[in-house]
Amino acid sequence: MVLAVEWVESPQPRIRLLDQTVLPAQETHLDITTVDGLVAAIQSLAVRGAPALGAAGALGVVVAMNQASRDGWDESRLQAEVDRIRLARPTAVNLAWGVDQVRGAMTQGADQVLILARGVVTDDEAANRELSRLGADWILERTGLERVRVVTHCNTGALATSAWGTAYGIIHELHDRDRLGLVYADETRPLLQGSRLTSWELTQDGIEHVVQVDGAAPSTILRGLVDVAIIGADRIVANGDTANKVGSVSLALACARAGIPFVVAAPSSTVDLATATGDDIDIEQRDPEEVVNFGGRRTAPEGAVGFNPAFDVTPHDLISAVVTERGVVEPANTPHPTLLARIAG
Amino acid sequence: MVLAVEWVESPQPRIRLLDQTVLPAQETHLDITTVDGLVAAIQSLAVRGAPALGAAGALGVVVAMNQASRDGWDESRLQAEVDRIRLARPTAVNLAWGVDQVRGAMTQGADQVLILARGVVTDDEAANRELSRLGADWILERTGLERVRVVTHCNTGALATSAWGTAYGIIHELHDRDRLGLVYADETRPLLQGSRLTSWELTQDGIEHVVQVDGAAPSTILRGLVDVAIIGADRIVANGDTANKVGSVSLALACARAGIPFVVAAPSSTVDLATATGDDIDIEQRDPEEVVNFGGRRTAPEGAVGFNPAFDVTPHDLISAVVTERGVVEPANTPHPTLLARIAG
Repeated sequence: MVLAVEWVESPQPRIRLLDQTVLPAQETHLDITTVDGLVAAIQSLAVRGAPALGAAGALGVVVAMNQASRDGWDESRLQAEVDRIRLARPTAVNLAWGVDQVRGAMTQGADQVLILARGVVTDDEAANRELSRLGADWILERTGLERVRVVTHCNTGALATSAWGTAYGIIHELHDRDRLGLVYADETRPLLQGSRLTSWELTQDGIEHVVQVDGAAPSTILRGLVDVAIIGADRIVANGDTANKVGSVSLALACARAGIPFVVAAPSSTVDLATATGDDIDIEQRDPEEVVNFGGRRTAPEGAVGFNPAFDVTPHDLISAVVTERGVVEPANTPHPTLLARIAG
Repeated sequence: MVLAVEWVESPQPRIRLLDQTVLPAQETHLDITTVDGLVAAIQSLAVRGAPALGAAGALGVVVAMNQASRDGWDESRLQAEVDRIRLARPTAVNLAWGVDQVRGAMTQGADQVLILARGVVTDDEAANRELSRLGADWILERTGLERVRVVTHCNTGALATSAWGTAYGIIHELHDRDRLGLVYADETRPLLQGSRLTSWELTQDGIEHVVQVDGAAPSTILRGLVDVAIIGADRIVANGDTANKVGSVSLALACARAGIPFVVAAPSSTVDLATATGDDIDIEQRDPEEVVNFGGRRTAPEGAVGFNPAFDVTPHDLISAVVTERGVVEPANTPHPTLLARIAG
């Protein structure tokens, strides 16, 4: 089984990350024993995906406490370093959530924090498996189809989570039930998480799929080639507006026009009831060079500047279903400011 | 001035193409003296863009006639070779149109065909300049803005036409009138015509712009960062449905939701009244390898298959204006089966 984030105790306690920047060409691991190392891994997307960031955040508190012991940090330095992990990326709520799940136990020592952090990881896998069952049930009932053809965007599989996956988990569940048709995986520019990671996971799981450019997704939907779009989420706010990898909203717009369901799948830890609407979500703006270079080679002319928002916001009225392990709500059918409270973490 | 397609008489009569597959890294020209060479250049996208294909098609008939003389082809072979040019790519109507503009004169000899073909080139530039004026007028009147911020997709500048450009021509016209704000150029995967070609033309023309991934375009529109989307067209059919580079329809869907105009700009030769609706347009399916490789390096895992439609169809009700040199019609406001007849070629 692929593990994006795991805790390894010996010879030295550390977080072991599968380096997602070099997949699928290389399967390399990073050993994280410092806050600097963890923040760099998060910001470079060596570890990414909202639920995996939650796991990394929780385990990161243990890394910070261990480093504090080694390097003789005082309490205020330790708390500042934990905050640095918490804020390493702004859009996915799960990173801060993961830190907050264990932070209160810091006074009880690193062993106790580690127990709680491992619980975050275990709970995430259980949540993913449950939401996958619920999501597959909902999609099969809604579409009434024997086999469901799916389009998805970015990567939401085991690589993006503690294990199993969210949107990918539903796809996997449909496959296990022998109810899955062809999967269309968007390549997901600029960093190609779909082409590099989702296609790699689909290949490993023996799931029939094709990879398409992001611009093809709306026409694939409008031409009737798929029956449902399923995506993950980095933050689902109180009214149902959802931040996810840039490009997601184009699938939602096309699904609404085509009259097919657009499904958001995430653990309940991704629901952020403290934020009212999508307008209030902080959208991470990444390095412009990611857009105008590829594989070390410049694609645009010298002097051209990239514009690189990492996420977009899909308005709740375009979202047919939000699936967490606590249930399914239907924002497009029953808009309500506190709709999401029922399935929040 | 950049010329994508030109006729050169000596030392040997030939079409001279700026090789667009290697821009902006290299400015290399291809000398075309055979039908094989021309078909290969069209299919590899060394020459591309609907109006430029019209010019290449018309001049290509002269190339075929010259080769027929050299190689001793009989009349039926010559006609078959002309058909090969005419059908080298299926979606842009202009390629066949360009061939058809001169084909009737073949009995009058190559010199007469060349005169007519040069007329196709000259007329295209004049059409582009006129439609750019009309398009800029329409956009300024519709938006009522002092400066208009624009998003565009693919490449529609001098590289895509005989000269000046279509959607790009309107952008250039707005710039010349000092009425242009920031331009957002979609990179246009898989072959990056936006990043490689449009950004190169914008840089050469001194027009301020940023390059974004295709998936960012809908959120750029929904976030209120642009005032209008302007694209070119490969085929505009009788009811206004429009085929253009894959990804175009995502801009149209977002513009409709944001309440800003979505404008299609093309010479009247792009209007195909013989085709009733977008469902009847043949969408070119290109090599899957274009999607799963980049710059000679594989991005997806071995065994992964690409899905590579080169175009999509934007339904007429999402198109605020179609601009040709003969005028402007508004498909979204006044849907009518023969709407386009007024501005067809």
